[in-house]
Parts: sequence; structure tokens; C-alpha cells
Amino acid sequence: MSQFKQSSVRIFALGGLGEIGKNTYVVEYEDEIVLIDCGIKFPDNELFGIDYVLSDYTYLKQNKEKIKGIFITHGHEDHIGGLPFLFRDVKVPVFGGDLSIELIKSKIEEHRIRGISFTSIDSDTIVEFEKIKVRFFRTTHSIADSFGVVITTPEGNIVHTGDFKFDLTPNGGEIDLHKIAEIGREGVLCLLSDSTNSESPGFSMSERKVGESIEEIFHAVQGRIIFASFASNIYRIQQVIKSSVKYKRKVAIVGRSMEKTIEIGRKLGYIVAPDDTFISVYDINKFPGGKITIICTGSQGEPMAALSRIANRSHRQIQIISGDTIVFSSSPIPGNTISVNRVIDRLHRAGADVIHHKISDIHTSGHGKQEEQKLMIRLLNPKYFFPIHGEYRMLQAHSKLAIQCGVHSKDCFVLDNGDILEISSQGAKKAGYIPASPVYVDGSGIGDIGTVVLRDRRMLSEEGIVIISMTINRKEKKLVSPPAIVTRGFIYIRESGDLLQELEQLIEDSLLSQLSTGAIKWNDIKRKMIDDVKPFLIDKTGRRPMILPIIMET
Amino acid sequence: MSQFKQSSVRIFALGGLGEIGKNTYVVEYEDEIVLIDCGIKFPDNELFGIDYVLSDYTYLKQNKEKIKGIFITHGHEDHIGGLPFLFRDVKVPVFGGDLSIELIKSKIEEHRIRGISFTSIDSDTIVEFEKIKVRFFRTTHSIADSFGVVITTPEGNIVHTGDFKFDLTPNGGEIDLHKIAEIGREGVLCLLSDSTNSESPGFSMSERKVGESIEEIFHAVQGRIIFASFASNIYRIQQVIKSSVKYKRKVAIVGRSMEKTIEIGRKLGYIVAPDDTFISVYDINKFPGGKITIICTGSQGEPMAALSRIANRSHRQIQIISGDTIVFSSSPIPGNTISVNRVIDRLHRAGADVIHHKISDIHTSGHGKQEEQKLMIRLLNPKYFFPIHGEYRMLQAHSKLAIQCGVHSKDCFVLDNGDILEISSQGAKKAGYIPASPVYVDGSGIGDIGTVVLRDRRMLSEEGIVIISMTINRKEKKLVSPPAIVTRGFIYIRESGDLLQELEQLIEDSLLSQLSTGAIKWNDIKRKMIDDVKPFLIDKTGRRPMILPIIMET
Repeated sequence: MSQFKQSSVRIFALGGLGEIGKNTYVVEYEDEIVLIDCGIKFPDNELFGIDYVLSDYTYLKQNKEKIKGIFITHGHEDHIGGLPFLFRDVKVPVFGGDLSIELIKSKIEEHRIRGISFTSIDSDTIVEFEKIKVRFFRTTHSIADSFGVVITTPEGNIVHTGDFKFDLTPNGGEIDLHKIAEIGREGVLCLLSDSTNSESPGFSMSERKVGESIEEIFHAVQGRIIFASFASNIYRIQQVIKSSVKYKRKVAIVGRSMEKTIEIGRKLGYIVAPDDTFISVYDINKFPGGKITIICTGSQGEPMAALSRIANRSHRQIQIISGDTIVFSSSPIPGNTISVNRVIDRLHRAGADVIHHKISDIHTSGHGKQEEQKLMIRLLNPKYFFPIHGEYRMLQAHSKLAIQCGVHSKDCFVLDNGDILEISSQGAKKAGYIPASPVYVDGSGIGDIGTVVLRDRRMLSEEGIVIISMTINRKEKKLVSPPAIVTRGFIYIRESGDLLQELEQLIEDSLLSQLSTGAIKWNDIKRKMIDDVKPFLIDKTGRRPMILPIIMET
Repeated sequence: MSQFKQSSVRIFALGGLGEIGKNTYVVEYEDEIVLIDCGIKFPDNELFGIDYVLSDYTYLKQNKEKIKGIFITHGHEDHIGGLPFLFRDVKVPVFGGDLSIELIKSKIEEHRIRGISFTSIDSDTIVEFEKIKVRFFRTTHSIADSFGVVITTPEGNIVHTGDFKFDLTPNGGEIDLHKIAEIGREGVLCLLSDSTNSESPGFSMSERKVGESIEEIFHAVQGRIIFASFASNIYRIQQVIKSSVKYKRKVAIVGRSMEKTIEIGRKLGYIVAPDDTFISVYDINKFPGGKITIICTGSQGEPMAALSRIANRSHRQIQIISGDTIVFSSSPIPGNTISVNRVIDRLHRAGADVIHHKISDIHTSGHGKQEEQKLMIRLLNPKYFFPIHGEYRMLQAHSKLAIQCGVHSKDCFVLDNGDILEISSQGAKKAGYIPASPVYVDGSGIGDIGTVVLRDRRMLSEEGIVIISMTINRKEKKLVSPPAIVTRGFIYIRESGDLLQELEQLIEDSLLSQLSTGAIKWNDIKRKMIDDVKPFLIDKTGRRPMILPIIMET
């Protein structure tokens, strides 16, 4: 029995289940571990001030000598963003497509991390460890060089799709249908598959259609075209550059991540155009509007990105002029809709025309819909199904599709981050748990912000703070000077003269009543003061600010 | 010339233009003013802690003797929510449909406002003032008793559509096509029309289709049905109650606004069912699941509403059990998507089935799409067009539709809140401005929160606050006791021993260096301290908390 246990495959996620973000998957066989991706998540607005969210790498630190390598499916932040943080403690060889490697290199340079080995992979690459072998198949996604990963263990093949769609007429980056079919014939023990669009029926729109929409826009528009998209969608950006060349427009690139990605894209040969196509942003006004394309960041309404600054008239080189057409080649991620709408509104007000996904086929998802997910399941025909990359309801919906495609319901595992799926010749089961709570990055601190700090930030954001500062002579049990009342994020208390006077009186009374009892425990005095001041403020203002008494003693 | 000026109609919005919310429109002819609606807006998440946003009523206060009445198109918060605040200063007669009046009465009762006169209106009502005459036509919207308003002035008819769709097979509340056509034949000087869906092509789905989906759900589901919707969508709630009666299910109502609205709906005859249909929430468990319908609030994921509490397992009477089906009969308002998804996810995890608008025709908008907007314009055939009720891009898109329907482009007025449209026999033009900035309500304060407080709240929410409290002996120019450092929403500084010690030293040095110069201006000392502490904290923590020095003197 214990021998069977030893020769089981253990699969779990440190991030990516029950969420969109921080994809980090682990496959373990005896003393060999391989990682697939290591992403970050962007915080929702309940995480006040948090910059990003990481996975908990404790298990990886504790087992670093077993880790053979990290395999990168593609170069999006939710798949590579965690690497600089992981590398602080765990330096592992990285395997990935060319674009992924270039993006990671540029990222870890910023973090001044060295000593990482990189190996470029392709469809024919085979990476062999002692017991585990790793191969790849190309997929179509909204970034170039996207791969699925096949991990061959003595127990069988584990397949991780990465992020994928089946685009049968892509603009570059064809999914390797035949190789996927071949792996399916070979046999798949367990399939980990992208669940993002498992609630959307049908088949996603082809990138070809987006290309046609771009062509139509270039054909029709007379003035400047300002094209906003994700920097990483290199094929689409190449399409825009190609159309620009065709219509004799010069191209200016605006926004740091866009510049960086296009530079990498040109180096790798994904972005191709005559050198004199590109002009500096400073030279835009030397050409008539009809001869200019501006490609920029900010399609999600990010406040600091180029497009938002253009819309707010705070961009130094670019002002909206009448006749400009702005193209949002994106659809807003939930949570960004309001910001995107605000930018669209400001652009309209400034006199521009705006084309977005609601009024034109100018964007398509990089994730396959239900029919594509079913096609992947049918081609690979796995024994066990482990839906990944999605919120709980998406994982569940994906699981239902797998059952429709012939996987037994007991062989589908909708799991949480940290849950271990153990597969052996005896079967598959949930077997234990690895710590996988989110880790918050705020400023240069990692994991030093907890729930108390977040609760305080929420409270401060809603009602502000009232600080009552007092100096007390401990021996004489009396106030050395009158209490100082300072507020922030509360009402303008200085303009509420009566309120302030009453409050001062209340504080002195509260303090003196405590001191006169002979009690001189500062905590008791503070608690009493909060108990006295709180109902007074609620009554007078209807607000519940944080009340913070500070006592100094002489 | 000045005579012509006197006999012009002036039309403006105090709220509702460039936004969805706080609809408040004013039509003025000589010394007669009529108001149409008086709504609030719910704050977006940049308005930290603000409860709601009102229009500026200054102009109305200054001209209250001219105001003849306020005409309510329907009972949604963005059309009636401002009334309790307006009534504090301006008590005007209210005209509206029965449901609107009941909802307003219940609202002003909570605010303990008395002395308001109410007049119930219907399609045949005519309200005549000295120079102005007001009539109404019924419209279909997502609440019962919705009306459009026709204001007949000596210059011509001004028509305000209210919120409308053309539902040709509604579940109650038919739009009065013939009366609208008749008014069109009579002649319309200016049309103010609902722009909400002016970016959506086509014709909105009929409520009949939603009714069919509800029937299908009741036919298919074996367990409990928990139906979440806007409380005010009385026709849809009646459909759910009707289906419950048909399938012999008892109905429990959960959530204060739902209870209130259904009570009013029953009183007015919109909700009809045998008395023994309704049961108390405490009696739910006395019936098998297949015999229970629960109608509740929370379809927008509002954290304190019934459905969120049920999903979070914090509802006292209702727990999710296996076999429950939850129906979200709504689509999330932008900004609520994340909360709604979170609730859906939690319900799934608790074992429930969830039906929502993405997977079923279980919701339709109450606002007409482009073809309906065009139908309204064609029927009324106005000389001037004034798109209302929408963000800037919606107003602009609506204006384009009007031009397609034959209105001259120079006769379309896309305006901002406060802009006055003046129409006389000489023509129409933008003529001046009435103050119409937003007014924030926070707790019991109205308008006492300004940009500084909001900026402080934003800063506090992102990085927290570091308070440095010092007592200084002014004569001796020295510290009476060591500075106290207190933080909130910053890192756990007590766990960062070194940081704290270094900070204390820095503060003392900063203070002593200032005191030793003989300078004893507190503001200089504070400024110097911020200048010294800020770079230290950025360097050590990567964070920029608010730094607040407090100096007390003895």
C-alpha cells in the first residue's frame, strides 16, 4: 500500500482556482516537482492600497531542491508576474517561448535579479528529468508564443492547456490541432484546462474578424487613428502597423509597456515594418492627421496610462483634435467598466470619435468558449478532469462540460487553491492541503499587510479619523495642556465651531472624570474617551469616524 | 427684442446630464416653473464614504415662489430620492402616479416631513396653471405607473418622456402609443428623451419573454426557488407570485424594501394573490422545498441586502440547502459586476443552482434601445431635441439618432447640467448657466464634504496615516515628553522594531534641529518634520502614508 502511495502524482494550485489571477500550478512525482506559471493578481477595490496579490510560496521554499524547473505557458502578468518574488528565495530554471522569456528577462532586470537560467521551448522541445518528461504544444491566445504543457509521469500524462482558444483563422499563432490529437491518442491521465469562458456558449470570434474591422477603420477614417490595446497582443498590433503601412501612415508608440513590447516584438520578428514607419511622439504634428497612427496603452481606463492622460488633457505631447478616431481594441475587465466609460466620455467631449467593442467587432477574447473547451476535452479525452483558471462558478460550469463530453462526474475535481489532487493506479482523490492563502504586496513590503491594516484603511476611507492628543502629568493626575483635536477625512471641523467647542468640553470632562477616580491606566482612559465621543459624533454628524486618543505623559 | 426674450421657455437640468442619476429637470416660462423629477445618484467608488449625491437646489430655493409643482415620471430613486432633501427648503405640490406617490409618502415619513400636497395623475389628468398646462401619457418601464409629461407653454409643447421602452407585449403597464401619436400631430416644440440605451442597436426584449422564462423555471425546478430582483419591478414580482400560486408554492418576502413595495403593491392592486399565499420567513421550514418561493432583495450584490447575507451564511432565517435554485432577475449595473459575481460564486459553493441573465432570458432592460428611441422621435416629431438621462456619449449617440430621424443637427442640444436652453419664436439657443454642481450627502451632513476631505480619504485608504504627537515647552524650547508615534492603515510598525527606533531618532533630530535655530513657528516645525520623515518612509517601506505631526505646547 505505502509503495502505491509513493508512486502517485500530486497536483495542486497555489493560485488560479476560485479566481482569475496568480496562476501557479504544481505537479509533483516522488522527489521531482515541476511548476507551471507563477502569476500575480491585481487587487479588487476591497484591497485598499494593495499593489498586487501573490501566491504563498512557502511550500516551494521548503522543497526547493526538488523543483526541476518552471514552465511558462505565456507571458501575461497573471502567469509570469510572480517570478521576481519567487526568485528572491527559489531560483529555478525557466522554460518558455521566446516572447515569454524576453518579457521575464526585462521584468527581473527591473528587480535586479540575476542567476536565472532560461531555455527557449517550441513544439518539438522535450525536457527530460529523471522520472518526469515535459513536452509542449502551441496554442492560440491573445499573446504570441503560448503553449500547453504535457508532463509525462510514470503514472501517465498530465496536460495543462495554458490559456487557449481554437482560432481556425488566426492572425498568427496557430493552435497545434494535430499534436493535441496525438497526445489524446497516446492517453491523458489528467487534464487541467482553462475555464475563463466556460459560461459563454458557442465558439469565440476569430482574430481574423478583428483584422477585417481594423482594415475597415483604416479604409474609412480620414483623421488620426489612436489605437489602444493590451501591449502584449502582438499579432493585433502587427495588424495595425501593417494597415498603417498600407495606408501610408506613420506610427508613433506611446506608453512604456507598449514601447517595451513592440521593441521585443521587432527583435523577435513578430513586428515587421520598414524602419521609417516609426516616428517619435515629438514628430506627430509634422504630419497631417490622415498620415498618423498612434498606438497606445490604456485600453482598460487605467488612470496613469497614456490614453487616460490624453483624455484628461494631461498628456504632454498629444492633445485630442477634431477628426481624431480612438479605437478601444479591448473589452473592459469587470471592475474597470466605470473607468473605461469615463475615458470614452472625456474623449467624446474633447471632440473625438470613439470605436469600441460594443459598436464594432474590434476585439475578441483570447479564451475559448464552451464549444472550444469541449473540443479540447474531446481531443485529449482525459481520465480525470481538473478545471483551472477561473472563479468557482466557471470551474463548475467547465466541469459540467467535461461530464457532457464523457468524463465521469466522480472523476471531475473542482478544487480550491492548496487542495492536493493525488492520482495513482488506485484512483484519484483529494488528499490534504498545502497553505495557499493570498500574500499582499504593498510598496516594498510583501506579506506585512494583514486584515487589521485593511480594515483600518476601509474605515478611514469611509469616515476619516478624529485624533485626540493629550499630555498628562502622571503624578499630579492632570492635563499639562488642553487636548488637541485633529481630523482628517472627517468634516471640516474648524468650520463647525459649536461642534468643536462641545467636543473639547466632552473630552475634558471624560478625562477628568477618569483621572479623578484615581485610575491612571491609559487604556481605560482611552476606552472611556471613545465610549464618550463616539455617540456624540454619531448624534451630531451621523458619521462614525475612527476615534484615536493619544496620551503622552510627563 | 426684450419682449421676445421675456416670452421664451427656459429648460435646464440640475441633474441627469452626463450621468446616470439625480434626474432633476426644470421648465420655466415667465414666472411659472415646473419641475420634473428630483432624484439622487449613488456614488461611484471614487467618492469615499459618500452616501449619495444630490443636485444643487440653490436656484429652486431662490425661486421657490415661482414653482407651481413637481411632476414625477416614476418612483425610482434616481427620480424621487432627492425629494426629502428638496422639501427641507422648498415645499411644492407633488403630482405623480399612485405608486410613485405611495413610495414618496413612505420616504418622507422616514424623514419626518409633513405638509406636502399630493395629486394622483393619470392619462386624462390635465393640470392647468396660469400660463402652463401639464398633461401625461403612460409609458412602459421597469416599475408600474410610469409617465411621460407634456408641458404646454404659449411657445409650444415641451415633452419629457420619463424613462421608457416600447414593450408591445408587456406584463402590465402599456405605453400609450395613440396619445403619443396625437401629441406628435398636435406639434412638439422640444423633446427631452431618455438616452440610457442609445448605444444599443435594435429593440429591447419584451417583458413577456421574461415571464415565459419565469414560467419555465417554475415548471422545471423541484426545490426552493429564491428569486432576487429590484423591489420596484412590481409587474415581474406579480408574475413570480402568479407562478407560485399556479405551482402551489407559498411565498416568503425577505428584505425591507421588498416587503414595503409588495405591501404598497397589494394595497394598490398591482400584486394580487390569495392571502394564504404569503407566509412568514419563520415558517419557511414548515414546507417542503418544492412548495416554497422566496422573493428577496440583493440582485445587485449589495453587501447588506438579504441575498448577500444568505450567500455569506449570515442570514438568520435562511440557509442555502442543496436543491435550491437562485434566480438573479437583473443585470449588474457597471461597478456592481464584481460584487454580483462574488455572491453568485458563494451561492454555487453553498450547493445552489444559480440562474442569471447571462444564461437565461430572465431580465430585460426598462429602457428602450435605438429602434424604440427612433420610434419615439418619429411619433413626436419635435422641432428641437434635448437628449437627457445619460452619460455624455449616450446623449451624443441619441442626438445622432434624432438627426437620422429628421431633426436638424443645429436643433439638437447635447448639454451639461445647469446649461440653459432658451426657446422662443426667434429660435433656440444655449443661454447662460445655473449652478448645478453635485452635492454630497454623508451621514446627516449635506454639502459639508468637499474635495479636501475626499482627497484625504483616498490617501488614507491607500497608504494609511502616521501620527507624530509632541508636547513642547515653548519657553524652554524643549520636548516635554518623547514624541508618540501612532499609525493606522500603515504597516504593523510595532513589529518593525528597527524601523520604529530609527523613526523616533529621526523625529527627535528633526525637532531639535528646528528648535535649536530658535525658530518656534509650529507650521515650520511640522513642515520640516514631514520633509524629513517622508523620504525615510518611502525608502524603508516603499509607501507614502499621510504624515500628521501634532504639536501641543505647555
